[in-house]
Amino acid sequence: MPSRPRDDDPTLGDLSEGEILRAILARTARASHTIIGPGDDAAVIAAPSGSVVATTDTLVHGPDFRLAWSSGYDLGWKAAAVNLADVAAMGARPTALLVALAVPRDLRLSFVERLADGFREACAALAPGCAVVGGDLTVSDVLTVAVTALGDLEGRAPVTRSGARVGDVVAVAGELGHAAHGLSVLFGRFRDGDTPVAVDPSALGRGESAALAAQLRPSPPIGLGPFAATAGATAMMDVSDGLALDARRMAAASAVTIALDSATLGDSPQRALAGGEDHALLATFPPGTLPSGFRVIGTVAPQGEHDLLVDDAPADVSGWDPYRDWDSASG
Amino acid sequence: MPSRPRDDDPTLGDLSEGEILRAILARTARASHTIIGPGDDAAVIAAPSGSVVATTDTLVHGPDFRLAWSSGYDLGWKAAAVNLADVAAMGARPTALLVALAVPRDLRLSFVERLADGFREACAALAPGCAVVGGDLTVSDVLTVAVTALGDLEGRAPVTRSGARVGDVVAVAGELGHAAHGLSVLFGRFRDGDTPVAVDPSALGRGESAALAAQLRPSPPIGLGPFAATAGATAMMDVSDGLALDARRMAAASAVTIALDSATLGDSPQRALAGGEDHALLATFPPGTLPSGFRVIGTVAPQGEHDLLVDDAPADVSGWDPYRDWDSASG
Repeated sequence: MPSRPRDDDPTLGDLSEGEILRAILARTARASHTIIGPGDDAAVIAAPSGSVVATTDTLVHGPDFRLAWSSGYDLGWKAAAVNLADVAAMGARPTALLVALAVPRDLRLSFVERLADGFREACAALAPGCAVVGGDLTVSDVLTVAVTALGDLEGRAPVTRSGARVGDVVAVAGELGHAAHGLSVLFGRFRDGDTPVAVDPSALGRGESAALAAQLRPSPPIGLGPFAATAGATAMMDVSDGLALDARRMAAASAVTIALDSATLGDSPQRALAGGEDHALLATFPPGTLPSGFRVIGTVAPQGEHDLLVDDAPADVSGWDPYRDWDSASG
Repeated sequence: MPSRPRDDDPTLGDLSEGEILRAILARTARASHTIIGPGDDAAVIAAPSGSVVATTDTLVHGPDFRLAWSSGYDLGWKAAAVNLADVAAMGARPTALLVALAVPRDLRLSFVERLADGFREACAALAPGCAVVGGDLTVSDVLTVAVTALGDLEGRAPVTRSGARVGDVVAVAGELGHAAHGLSVLFGRFRDGDTPVAVDPSALGRGESAALAAQLRPSPPIGLGPFAATAGATAMMDVSDGLALDARRMAAASAVTIALDSATLGDSPQRALAGGEDHALLATFPPGTLPSGFRVIGTVAPQGEHDLLVDDAPADVSGWDPYRDWDSASG
């Protein structure tokens, strides 16, 4: 959540690019796979497997986050976490992040410093050894954080969405529906008309605090991605657009039907199915090989009329666009 | 340069994310190093050397380009080229691009299709075998293209900025000052007050057309990066902020003084020294090892009071910020 500007806290427009980069780099850890780190034309990162896993995901102010709700630290943490999850979902271990920041001139230096802290600490907590190895800084009226994450497969084959086989169990690691719950708390309780207002932590119930953390600083089970690959996962993906939509995508890619049991989806199965931004790992395993950290939520059936069944009925699948019709200029 | 919308040319706001992605992917070539391409959580790219070179560079509407001057094709080409140049400057061969697009809802589909064409054709022309392997699409009020380029060193050591040795020759491959000339043509001739207006090709002199191409669709000598590394380049970098500033950076990183001879810098040495966005390759070589494609522009001297001398005098080095004080909302 946002913090107050320091008295000596200049805006980025008052600083040179070099000054801003030095402040950021002072808060960056060294990645264990770094051969050449920040400061040259490009970074060089070890890729011991002879291949590299690469993914990019961007957070844009307005559609993806609001400064009234997210601190710099939250934003850095989340931008790291959502990209690390995509690497983990291939069965790879994250090795490095590259961060392209486009920043308004009136943003405070402290915000960017805390953003760097968020990146560093999310990596330390979720993917030890991974760190920011390079980046780019430009000016924009819209604060934009574009991250590329790299990873190493450590000799394993990549786990795609298309390998689910009839008879496999369908399993998940990580929370479902909490991030959506957190967003509903923000939308429902911390707005003035259409304008987001700062969160008052004292006004939150216990479950609400956890839900808000899942939304603002998600902690996907990154280490379980490589672990699942080693255990023999046949298919895997990051659940970012809601379990129902993402399970349907996996079923279509694998030419199977996925059948889920709502009794395994917690207190609010509908929220677990529809809510986005979970960044849980959805995977399929041959029967009898479920690794620790995963729980069974269904089975893989022969391809039928519907890609996805929930309790043997066709699932109502709707996409995830929580900020649809919002005015992206406010907040 | 911009083209007219087709009659059946919807805005991106009228289309689903899936429809837009399908249109883009239909125009994407396969990279020769691709193990897994677009469509899964992450791409997997071969890294035969056991390491990967990675860099990111962003183009933001306003500070970095104007829609009145750049077509979608130009923008895709340039966003590819400037990133490929950073990979080449390490002595690596580009293998893959990841593209994070943040697009306004009122942008036309044809613009994004031509952007994909520009990426594809820039790769084909400048770095055969490299292609877009992944990306991300988000909504933003400010059109933003954040690219990450990956490359392979093919068994060579990376060439950094810090390896220049006393007695080396200083050499360059590619044009100097043309991109700055092109920008001065745009600023001087194709504005209405502060508002950029479309370029009229019939109003351009011969040198102006070439300068405009260097600005809008630069063709850095990507293949000469790996070639220089093989030939024994001791230091190398992409010239993006003007030769003077970048040569000074190389000198500082290498703890030497770089002495340039202005007689080697073409018709307009001052423009060659100050102009940005050339994406030429600046490199140092042991005497007698200059590879084809490079021309000598100076020598490496022991570190003195000044990092950079031009004709034996301290150089006047100014940075490159052509859009400073411009209103980024117009154009």
